[in-house]
Amino acid sequence: MEWSTVIGNVAAVLTTFSFVPQVLKTIRTRDTSGISLPMYALFVTGIGFWLIYGLMTNSQPIILANSITFVLAGIVLVFKIRSLR
Amino acid sequence: MEWSTVIGNVAAVLTTFSFVPQVLKTIRTRDTSGISLPMYALFVTGIGFWLIYGLMTNSQPIILANSITFVLAGIVLVFKIRSLR
Repeated sequence: MEWSTVIGNVAAVLTTFSFVPQVLKTIRTRDTSGISLPMYALFVTGIGFWLIYGLMTNSQPIILANSITFVLAGIVLVFKIRSLR
Repeated sequence: MEWSTVIGNVAAVLTTFSFVPQVLKTIRTRDTSGISLPMYALFVTGIGFWLIYGLMTNSQPIILANSITFVLAGIVLVFKIRSLR
């Protein structure tokens, strides 16, 4: 495996799984006051586009990483929307 | 330009600039209680690796998008760290 591929994989794992502690914190505390709704709305939409891009270019790492991020960031978005009611 | 490139560019713009409303909210309210420190620590580190990956593979869009995200998410991380003092 080339060095750049190793670095790219490390990057993908870090940015994908970084959302795990946020999801756990949000589920535990339900505190979403400091979290920006437009950020998560734009971010989850953008991850959806990355997923379509991965499917169109048949890129397994992009499909895998963005499927996981879509679910994780989606959970935070749902909690934020619920808190506004 | 191919359709997949258009979709990829839309995805990059959305995920990059999604952090703008979060940065503005954090600067305005200084409310970072619901924001996860490990999330932003891992995320900013991961974006740093994406930046190195972009430089190694000479990919201008990856370099550009991740430079901007690094600064924006970095600002949120600094506010979160400051709030812990």
